[in-house]
Amino acid sequence: MPYSLGIDFGTNSVRAVLVNLESGEELAASVAAYPSGIDGVIIEPGNPHLARQHPADYLVCLEKVVKNLLRRAKKQARSFSPEMVVGIGVDTTGSTPIPVDENLLPLAFHDEFRNNKNALAWLWKDHTSADEAEEITELARKIRPQYLERIGGVYSSEWFFSKILHLSRVDPEVFQSSASFVELADFIPAVLAGRKNPAQVIRCICAAGHKALYSEDWGGLPDEEFLTRLSPAFQGLRKRLYEKAYPAGELAGRLCAAWATKLTLPEGIPISVGAFDAHMGAVGSGIREETLVKILGTSTCDMMIFPKSCQLPPIPGLCGIVPDSIIPGYWGLEAGQSAVGDIFYWFVKTFMPEFPGRSYRYFEKQAEKLKPGESGLLALDWHNGNRTILVDQKLTGLILGFTLTTRPFEVYRTLIEATAFGARVIIDRLEEYGVKVSEIITGGGIAEKSPFLMQIYADVTGRNFRISASSQNCALGAAIFGAMAAGPKKTGLASVARAQEKLCHFKTVVYRPNQQHHQMYNRLYALYRKLHDSFGTRTGSENLYVVMKELLALKGKSHG
Amino acid sequence: MPYSLGIDFGTNSVRAVLVNLESGEELAASVAAYPSGIDGVIIEPGNPHLARQHPADYLVCLEKVVKNLLRRAKKQARSFSPEMVVGIGVDTTGSTPIPVDENLLPLAFHDEFRNNKNALAWLWKDHTSADEAEEITELARKIRPQYLERIGGVYSSEWFFSKILHLSRVDPEVFQSSASFVELADFIPAVLAGRKNPAQVIRCICAAGHKALYSEDWGGLPDEEFLTRLSPAFQGLRKRLYEKAYPAGELAGRLCAAWATKLTLPEGIPISVGAFDAHMGAVGSGIREETLVKILGTSTCDMMIFPKSCQLPPIPGLCGIVPDSIIPGYWGLEAGQSAVGDIFYWFVKTFMPEFPGRSYRYFEKQAEKLKPGESGLLALDWHNGNRTILVDQKLTGLILGFTLTTRPFEVYRTLIEATAFGARVIIDRLEEYGVKVSEIITGGGIAEKSPFLMQIYADVTGRNFRISASSQNCALGAAIFGAMAAGPKKTGLASVARAQEKLCHFKTVVYRPNQQHHQMYNRLYALYRKLHDSFGTRTGSENLYVVMKELLALKGKSHG
Repeated sequence: MPYSLGIDFGTNSVRAVLVNLESGEELAASVAAYPSGIDGVIIEPGNPHLARQHPADYLVCLEKVVKNLLRRAKKQARSFSPEMVVGIGVDTTGSTPIPVDENLLPLAFHDEFRNNKNALAWLWKDHTSADEAEEITELARKIRPQYLERIGGVYSSEWFFSKILHLSRVDPEVFQSSASFVELADFIPAVLAGRKNPAQVIRCICAAGHKALYSEDWGGLPDEEFLTRLSPAFQGLRKRLYEKAYPAGELAGRLCAAWATKLTLPEGIPISVGAFDAHMGAVGSGIREETLVKILGTSTCDMMIFPKSCQLPPIPGLCGIVPDSIIPGYWGLEAGQSAVGDIFYWFVKTFMPEFPGRSYRYFEKQAEKLKPGESGLLALDWHNGNRTILVDQKLTGLILGFTLTTRPFEVYRTLIEATAFGARVIIDRLEEYGVKVSEIITGGGIAEKSPFLMQIYADVTGRNFRISASSQNCALGAAIFGAMAAGPKKTGLASVARAQEKLCHFKTVVYRPNQQHHQMYNRLYALYRKLHDSFGTRTGSENLYVVMKELLALKGKSHG
Repeated sequence: MPYSLGIDFGTNSVRAVLVNLESGEELAASVAAYPSGIDGVIIEPGNPHLARQHPADYLVCLEKVVKNLLRRAKKQARSFSPEMVVGIGVDTTGSTPIPVDENLLPLAFHDEFRNNKNALAWLWKDHTSADEAEEITELARKIRPQYLERIGGVYSSEWFFSKILHLSRVDPEVFQSSASFVELADFIPAVLAGRKNPAQVIRCICAAGHKALYSEDWGGLPDEEFLTRLSPAFQGLRKRLYEKAYPAGELAGRLCAAWATKLTLPEGIPISVGAFDAHMGAVGSGIREETLVKILGTSTCDMMIFPKSCQLPPIPGLCGIVPDSIIPGYWGLEAGQSAVGDIFYWFVKTFMPEFPGRSYRYFEKQAEKLKPGESGLLALDWHNGNRTILVDQKLTGLILGFTLTTRPFEVYRTLIEATAFGARVIIDRLEEYGVKVSEIITGGGIAEKSPFLMQIYADVTGRNFRISASSQNCALGAAIFGAMAAGPKKTGLASVARAQEKLCHFKTVVYRPNQQHHQMYNRLYALYRKLHDSFGTRTGSENLYVVMKELLALKGKSHG
């Protein structure tokens, strides 16, 4: 009986699952919360942009979560033994670079940097590097426009080089003392494999391609000239990094003796090249051609794959287009909405504070009774800017159609519809460039908690929505890549697709569009697009006179 | 000691004041509530548009309110006697036409029509005639475009001919049995003067010019051809109405013996030609050249005067431009905002229902601490459409600039600012056409209750705001016209302006613009105008890309 171990390093904790590659079932799961900071995140009073993690947390939790998992597995199935684990896969947050020394030891472990936050891991959501991100975008626009084509036109403060550049300025000592900077997604497999120095670390294409401007089209990472023009301090940086990146599923190494002992696993188990949590989550959710995986949470992450054999032009506004970053052999496409659940949370908490019984459910019950268009309201879901397709943080939310009888539950439904329209803009952009979206798989708390929202999403987009059954999609995806690293001889699974067929499960409910509602939403969506293009682009000079008029007409129609 | 009696027929009650024309003081006031319907308004279950009044209520209350007033006056000043009353003025709601017989008796007094709501007075806010209003606008646009120039381009369902046309269709019997249709503002002076038939009724220019398309430019009321094309039933209607209309201050008649007895007043007192409540209210508030009177309530009524001797082109979007309708010798200009207090009421009641302590004051206290632009929000105050300058019911409210940290009190302040911007649009339009607005006098509950709002209005418009001191501005205005009817020999007051100097008083507080805030509001107002023109006009094809950007920039600036 072959098993694969998937380990998922999230923002607050590490999760692990053990899956049976023959039966397709999950044998056991476990969680370990990071001990440092607030829920694992080290912050700085007075600087809301700073978010770091202690690398020791990763290693402590890695040991704990796996040992715990194996204990549970044994309890679950007497027949199970650690020798049955044929592969290990790892996914992590990112871009989360760690400054390391020439022995691959994080600088944070050095006495001299013990109390220095700049020597810690720079968590994905650290936004201290906003200025540097703008500089990188600016320089690329001038001398390397090709760099921007695959990242939606704007380099982010959350990404690799922004963070390294900021570090080089605020703390030259840490910057100079770092032999290299290693993404968490590369660091964990390297540690497990017992790598002794940065040069031995196998870097993943997912982090490299999405966050470090890596592409084979221009020979890997950005060239020396580009880096040096960013900052003289970057002279020689390229050599401290890497030449080549690899897709998940390839071998990052084999479990070393030291870690085999720690984890109570046999030495030599193949370890897959890593990837980011969302991407492995997409695989665990069942991503395949023409199927968009949408992770619905406070914000969304939307992923697609597209055969590398087909022509794929740059898709404007898509924040990531990287070969092999999700499934080898395919372009990995990443998009997202800056705020979804966050908007609903804001609305309910802000406008109905501490009022007994006024909850999501309270609003949903009333909002459910409305027909599309009945409220006469329309909104833009830009409360936290717009990631895809406008790639613009400096946008804000809008609601129009208010009358003196507008009620809160009408606004609530309108905000849900707005996020659904936002979702449709992404789908439209993909299809406009030849990436067909036939159905959508979703996961995350909202998808399970709100059938009401799911039905609106189906009605607005005109697509079926399925919900993945596992609550550990990321770790499940990692386990699938663990199986790939083990190879088909040991697993009987010749491809990611075969593994997904066996391991990915779905809830029985499928949300199918109500065609009548879909027709009405098509008309509302046309109005949404007018607002979207007029407020969101420099070129949209739509006359908006029709917007309120048509909303009132549809309202009348829907009432009549 | 000459006294003037002012009588104000409102929607729910009649108010009367007695003013001393020598001292300028108000000696006494009294109120009488209409006995019929709900607060005087007769409605119909299932038809929210219907609003009628019983003419008997007017007469019953007229007697009651005046007798009561005189009793109080005697109590107040022993020296007072009814012989000192030298003039009577009357103002009423409008357009409130009453079907009457050939003896000027309302048809509602006939046994055969006793239970017929169509024989009652059609109150100003009766909206059963929406279709007819559109027909009138349509026909005028085709064959008499000049009719529309002075009413802002659209004939309203609240106005005289819409109501008569609707009556002719839903109740031909009442229509045919009516010898004439008399505005309440003309009916009361005629009754007091003992007029015996409709032909003897002196009609006022205020009702004729603002609501019945009357103008000397085209020989009075709309011509026979126009009326007959509206409806064959209108053949001969013009003869049942009137040839000429007169300004307030002229003589409508003298108190007849019968009503002198009823009111315990001497026979023969001069009675002024009537006018609408808002217009006489403007006079009572102290309207004069370059001074706009703004009555701030659920909605607003904005009034100006402009010398008839000066050239005044049609001002697009102004709902009424009528010579002599406010003060003889001046154009009377009427504008308004469809919702002001209504918007604040809606917001507080809708988003903070039944929550202890969440009141206007609660929001104001927090909103007061904000600087202009600090919230990053901007709104359009079109929750009930836009009266001036767009003359469009089919518009709705808009709020933009939401982030995930937007708070209710920020929205509250933004809605107040939006109504202030709406006020400024009216001022700008007036000045654009040569009507200078140097200061603003306001009255109404909001003006007294919210110094916070008044200061924002001053800051946004860049004008001083004064508040009229009387709580009975309409009745006071009527009393001024009573004095005019009496003539300067008896009163020593040679003109409306002289009477105002003596009789109109103001609160000591003056709201003066804070210049720094005014500068910031100038920038926000420029953005408001972009939204206003883009959503409100067919021709505005502004690119709105800058709106959210600039709001965020101003927000940052105001925080920094």
